[in-house]
Amino acid sequence: MSLFGGTFARGGAAAAVSDDAWAPALLAVEAALARAAARAGLVPADAADAVAAACAHPERLDLAAVAARAADAGNPVPALVRVLLDAVGERGAAAVHVGATSQDVLDTALVLLARDAVAAIDADLAAAADLAAGLARTHRDDVVAGRTLMQQALPTTFGLKAAGWLSGLDGARLRLAEAVATLPVQYGGAVGTLAASGGSGLALRAALAGELGLATTAVPWSTVRLPVADLAGALGAAAGVVATVAVDVVLLAQTEVAEVAEVAEGRGGSSAMPHKRNPVAAISARACARRAPGLVATLLAAMEQEHERAAGAWQSEWPTLTDLLGTVGSAASWLAESLRGLRPDPARMAATAAAAAEGPLAGALAEALAPSLGKGAAHDAAADAVREARDGSRPLAEVVAARTDVDVRAVLAAGRPDVGEAGAQVDAALAEHHRLTEGEA
Amino acid sequence: MSLFGGTFARGGAAAAVSDDAWAPALLAVEAALARAAARAGLVPADAADAVAAACAHPERLDLAAVAARAADAGNPVPALVRVLLDAVGERGAAAVHVGATSQDVLDTALVLLARDAVAAIDADLAAAADLAAGLARTHRDDVVAGRTLMQQALPTTFGLKAAGWLSGLDGARLRLAEAVATLPVQYGGAVGTLAASGGSGLALRAALAGELGLATTAVPWSTVRLPVADLAGALGAAAGVVATVAVDVVLLAQTEVAEVAEVAEGRGGSSAMPHKRNPVAAISARACARRAPGLVATLLAAMEQEHERAAGAWQSEWPTLTDLLGTVGSAASWLAESLRGLRPDPARMAATAAAAAEGPLAGALAEALAPSLGKGAAHDAAADAVREARDGSRPLAEVVAARTDVDVRAVLAAGRPDVGEAGAQVDAALAEHHRLTEGEA
Amino acid sequence: MSLFGGTFARGGAAAAVSDDAWAPALLAVEAALARAAARAGLVPADAADAVAAACAHPERLDLAAVAARAADAGNPVPALVRVLLDAVGERGAAAVHVGATSQDVLDTALVLLARDAVAAIDADLAAAADLAAGLARTHRDDVVAGRTLMQQALPTTFGLKAAGWLSGLDGARLRLAEAVATLPVQYGGAVGTLAASGGSGLALRAALAGELGLATTAVPWSTVRLPVADLAGALGAAAGVVATVAVDVVLLAQTEVAEVAEVAEGRGGSSAMPHKRNPVAAISARACARRAPGLVATLLAAMEQEHERAAGAWQSEWPTLTDLLGTVGSAASWLAESLRGLRPDPARMAATAAAAAEGPLAGALAEALAPSLGKGAAHDAAADAVREARDGSRPLAEVVAARTDVDVRAVLAAGRPDVGEAGAQVDAALAEHHRLTEGEA
Amino acid sequence: MSLFGGTFARGGAAAAVSDDAWAPALLAVEAALARAAARAGLVPADAADAVAAACAHPERLDLAAVAARAADAGNPVPALVRVLLDAVGERGAAAVHVGATSQDVLDTALVLLARDAVAAIDADLAAAADLAAGLARTHRDDVVAGRTLMQQALPTTFGLKAAGWLSGLDGARLRLAEAVATLPVQYGGAVGTLAASGGSGLALRAALAGELGLATTAVPWSTVRLPVADLAGALGAAAGVVATVAVDVVLLAQTEVAEVAEVAEGRGGSSAMPHKRNPVAAISARACARRAPGLVATLLAAMEQEHERAAGAWQSEWPTLTDLLGTVGSAASWLAESLRGLRPDPARMAATAAAAAEGPLAGALAEALAPSLGKGAAHDAAADAVREARDGSRPLAEVVAARTDVDVRAVLAAGRPDVGEAGAQVDAALAEHHRLTEGEA
Repeated sequence: MSLFGGTFARGGAAAAVSDDAWAPALLAVEAALARAAARAGLVPADAADAVAAACAHPERLDLAAVAARAADAGNPVPALVRVLLDAVGERGAAAVHVGATSQDVLDTALVLLARDAVAAIDADLAAAADLAAGLARTHRDDVVAGRTLMQQALPTTFGLKAAGWLSGLDGARLRLAEAVATLPVQYGGAVGTLAASGGSGLALRAALAGELGLATTAVPWSTVRLPVADLAGALGAAAGVVATVAVDVVLLAQTEVAEVAEVAEGRGGSSAMPHKRNPVAAISARACARRAPGLVATLLAAMEQEHERAAGAWQSEWPTLTDLLGTVGSAASWLAESLRGLRPDPARMAATAAAAAEGPLAGALAEALAPSLGKGAAHDAAADAVREARDGSRPLAEVVAARTDVDVRAVLAAGRPDVGEAGAQVDAALAEHHRLTEGEA
Repeated sequence: MSLFGGTFARGGAAAAVSDDAWAPALLAVEAALARAAARAGLVPADAADAVAAACAHPERLDLAAVAARAADAGNPVPALVRVLLDAVGERGAAAVHVGATSQDVLDTALVLLARDAVAAIDADLAAAADLAAGLARTHRDDVVAGRTLMQQALPTTFGLKAAGWLSGLDGARLRLAEAVATLPVQYGGAVGTLAASGGSGLALRAALAGELGLATTAVPWSTVRLPVADLAGALGAAAGVVATVAVDVVLLAQTEVAEVAEVAEGRGGSSAMPHKRNPVAAISARACARRAPGLVATLLAAMEQEHERAAGAWQSEWPTLTDLLGTVGSAASWLAESLRGLRPDPARMAATAAAAAEGPLAGALAEALAPSLGKGAAHDAAADAVREARDGSRPLAEVVAARTDVDVRAVLAAGRPDVGEAGAQVDAALAEHHRLTEGEA
Repeated sequence: MSLFGGTFARGGAAAAVSDDAWAPALLAVEAALARAAARAGLVPADAADAVAAACAHPERLDLAAVAARAADAGNPVPALVRVLLDAVGERGAAAVHVGATSQDVLDTALVLLARDAVAAIDADLAAAADLAAGLARTHRDDVVAGRTLMQQALPTTFGLKAAGWLSGLDGARLRLAEAVATLPVQYGGAVGTLAASGGSGLALRAALAGELGLATTAVPWSTVRLPVADLAGALGAAAGVVATVAVDVVLLAQTEVAEVAEVAEGRGGSSAMPHKRNPVAAISARACARRAPGLVATLLAAMEQEHERAAGAWQSEWPTLTDLLGTVGSAASWLAESLRGLRPDPARMAATAAAAAEGPLAGALAEALAPSLGKGAAHDAAADAVREARDGSRPLAEVVAARTDVDVRAVLAAGRPDVGEAGAQVDAALAEHHRLTEGEA
Repeated sequence: MSLFGGTFARGGAAAAVSDDAWAPALLAVEAALARAAARAGLVPADAADAVAAACAHPERLDLAAVAARAADAGNPVPALVRVLLDAVGERGAAAVHVGATSQDVLDTALVLLARDAVAAIDADLAAAADLAAGLARTHRDDVVAGRTLMQQALPTTFGLKAAGWLSGLDGARLRLAEAVATLPVQYGGAVGTLAASGGSGLALRAALAGELGLATTAVPWSTVRLPVADLAGALGAAAGVVATVAVDVVLLAQTEVAEVAEVAEGRGGSSAMPHKRNPVAAISARACARRAPGLVATLLAAMEQEHERAAGAWQSEWPTLTDLLGTVGSAASWLAESLRGLRPDPARMAATAAAAAEGPLAGALAEALAPSLGKGAAHDAAADAVREARDGSRPLAEVVAARTDVDVRAVLAAGRPDVGEAGAQVDAALAEHHRLTEGEA
């Protein structure tokens, strides 16, 4: 009974890499290897059929025995092979684990798990991206205060904010797709020479890759872990994108800002404080995403692997990569929920932006003064005016209006909210999103 | 059915932080809080008794409902409190969750889990330390080649190697003990003011600390996470010590070195290669220990927490700290197993060290030449002699014996293995270990 | 000409670990070793004097030659020893590098650098702590909205916020002091046996420790890197505390919150936007602090060191630990500047807290309804009332006043701001701070 | 005078990201922006010429003033713009910093630095790859003991080992090339709307990208940091590949293995031990590569950036990304040196592999026994035979020869070294390398 699974093992990715997913994945590799070996003429077809049949029913195998013996061998494959041999009997034995070593099966299974998990992550990211696209479209021209260094700066639009989220989510999807597209099979035998593959090792590697829809390789990647690094990098990037969207939601939902709210039935209330409405989905997305960088670092540090199979670093990948897939998946799932329930408040945004118009006005004043004073001094003079207005609790416009050294009317006009090419940029991001997704439907 | 639990969730620590451990820990905090509130006169004694009674039987509570509702609230405590209220009825309600907020209960429960897990880790580290002490004692004077930068250098003793391991293991235990000794209770109410504690908040915090055997604090540590950082640092250090011992075992067990073997019934064989004997325990210890630094970094990065309760960073601690405790515990457990089965081969060590005597001999030659040639040129001349011996596949002693510019007999004598104060240092480390452990028995 | 040194190499710590600090530190170790050897009767006093004299003037040594040859040897000590031998001539040669190996000198020098840098960090943290204490004292009873999960919750005081910062800063100082107090000398010779120390190695190690004010050890710590881990852990914790204070400053300084401002002559203006006032010091503190966790992870991962001297991990500590010291020092320095210039706005705080009084009021309503409805339904009813008020843009008090199912007067009274034992907690934190610092003056 | 620069700031990348590289890069962006603005008709051509002319001579600008004022502004761009305005006078002022904000210039300059640094890294990786290809070709069929989990397993070839290195180095280059190919310009103005670009912002962004040879974007990436994540991921992967090759060199160079040596004039000697020859280049490569994962984690964690410009996370990228580029470059440079000086010893390899032939022989015995005993029991029987041989210090062949339950002659034949398709795999990796590099010459 996990009290935290709903938060940290949310969405399809976590299920795809759960403890229960491993045995089917390992057996899928053994089955594919048997079929490939039969196709290559290395083993009888009926032997391969027997293996494939046994592998299709993990629940009929003595997995408890495998679990019990896995740690002593350092990995579960030797025990699984024994159980599989028992299951297929004499008829199938020839087609079990043909020319393979434990790492061949384990690495390929890990790749399969990762592919499944990334598919689930991608679905959640795609949902989040579509929601961001919808927000960008709907709020294309809704003015909001732009904020830099956590201070109100000049106005922008909520559409452009959402378009930025969209570009990040689309970008994260592209990177994951690239990492998955090149995921290779692992097959080389005990030390990578293919010596136990009856002279047909390279062909068998290609056939196995074909069976599983994976890429093949010129040489084994037993201790050259670029495929793991590719996944790690793309997952880390995806987590970062989720986090940056989520922190925006959390900041915009602050009581004092209140430009968005996260609405979901039954979520976000506080036991002690009935008036509170917490953006739980965005908060949970942040929590899940924050776990990624450290896991990525562990995987990158584990790339230093010895000789033909590493003594510790390789093994450390298993829980680390599955945890990474699970936490990034949970983060993506939460973000999609957050954006699905997001309620922007354009009126509130507009009101705040109006109050923030002091910014552009000061800029306009500085620009108007620049020809006579020079850019530097003009900037200082504008800053003085801002200070004067604050000290006197007066609107800046009033202070500006009292000046005689500038064309007051022009300055006040120039100080009106100007969101430049925000809209055109939104359109450009939506067009990119359309190009990315049109092939998917 | 976890195929990897035997490797990555080994030993008592992993059990102490498993999913199943959370509900009892959360309830232990609620029970202690009820008792403390009764002692402080804030609630009737019989109400507190009812709460304590309910908390003592987690299996009777509807934890499935808690799990189902936890994610929506952002943490499981609100749902647990509701379930607890249902269980204690009207009589006990007054003593439920007195003056507390979710974070009070969750942080304190996390501290309880950590304390239990560290106790298990400490037991494994203590076992490993005792085994290292035994090795240091037994092999106090067994000469072995010292190796720097992975090259044979001058001779040392296996006793001194083991004494180094011992000092590290004892040191890791001391650091963990310090981190645990100061673990504080968390109690402050919704925003830390103790406003819901009827004016007795500080007293109640102290009483709750007393109930649980924890430290109290002047102010809440809701967003000042030094207790988590303390644990993280001490656990990271412990993992590093385990790793450095384990890598020594793995290196000494290399086929070409073969100065130790790891022996355990039924472990370390290879399916494809019956002749292999893998040091599985040391390898698994390395694998587990390697996961620690990234998790520590996640916890340290999560120290940046906002206002009175963080929106993501706090939550990210839960799976990260428990994973860290579990993986360090597994590493320690594996290391104890490795050292328990360790079979040093002093004869092999001695043979290698003799062959390595070339090192001291070259040093002696350099020293003998120094007065006439100067330290620099003497060093170069000795290096030339080594090269001459290697190129001619002759023992260095033969090349030295042919020289006329040094007292050959003295040089050859000086070139004999000299392990300096290795023995005295072993004794010093054992004495420290004795002082550390004598109070424990 | 570093354009970023003012940001990332700020304060005394960065200087203490700069490139220029290394040669003096290495020479300080050589000098102390010469003196210790003389005291132990291993070398003539005048030889030691000659060495000490040469070491006192790094600028007279050919450090360019050392720098040029360092990389080929893997570290600068061999070249430094040659240069030192040249400098002291025949008279001093006997007292140069007595019984030592490169790692002895390098590790001990690193410890000296770290001690100096931590002293500088501590000074900045102490300044920050004193400023936080001042804020806690001055604003002991100033009400401010407490915020959890980035939402206004119940009221607290700015004094209690500052007391939280204070407790963290004091705690960080304590941890650094502990790590520094146990920093040991490194001395063991080529493979740690003390074989080149003329039988007086243990005594010499203790004497060297005495010369430098460091701890001694039973055995070398050449590949058991607990002292580095201790520093890393304490520095990571300090960075986390700095970050959590800095993020509070940044959040409170948001335009929409405006409860504090960071004021410093000539700092924080924006070129494009004269009206902005950025909390540059707090932002820079965050930027510097964020670099720490990754560096800590690198150091912890580097604890896995081989045999008697590691082939890569050891070396990786040098730039990593110095970077960590420098960045934590910069963070501490910026935080002190931020707090020095901090201008809290109690009036603004009070106004916001008043508007936030809706929170306590809802709580009071829930409590009043609980006896009749039960805790759960009462909570829901209070949430309904909050929603009703919001939907109608009415004050919650008005909605409550219209109810007939509660004692309205009592509820409204209970809904008044109550900061509980905030003040007593501030006093407790200040008392702890006083105890910590009274011995220092 | 850096005593460590030769180790940790080696190769072209470190120079490309040094302190001195920043000002030229920032000015290159300003110059390109002026030219692009002139081409877009936004500013007079002669103004742009004046700006470009001033930017071409950083040494004539008052960079000391920029450095002095950078920290107060939070970044050096505002001060640089002032100095540039002073330099170009009235004539050029209109073409300075057109429509830009500090982050536009700083991000784009960082991208330029990264591109230069990656070019240098790529050159070193290419050199290393070519050397690995040479080793693979030369030693295509040289038998060497394969080692898994640090134990001798079955034979492989040194050619296949080198081909594995080659595939990793080629793969690392491809990933870096992809990351660099998509590096975008940053241009959006104060809050990303292009409001200060006179309605030509999107065109100006594209023109600026064209000037600098960078990609353009639909929206700014001010707080969506995928370009930084791409670099981080590719650099982390490159570091991992370098590390895995380097650890192989270090392990093969162990005194007890001695299958390779690293030879370089004047490098790798030991002051205290003239007989030692340390693989300093491989060790230094490991040391540099180890710094990468933590830096990558820092960059990924920094992806969570607030609103339109982050308050700390963005700034933390500057030293972190440049450190990462520098350390990966140093690692690559060292690895190229290591492989350049690598001296494999095929005779030694062959001798060891022959002694290791016990492995295949045991495998052959197990296979021969399988039909009668079943796979499991046959494996056990072979393990018994190995134990019997070891206990009796007899060759395994002798034990096998005494058996009556197998065709001894066939088993002994099958036990001969068989490196399978090692050669064909080497050829495949070389062919891939050829395809990758043929377009480069």
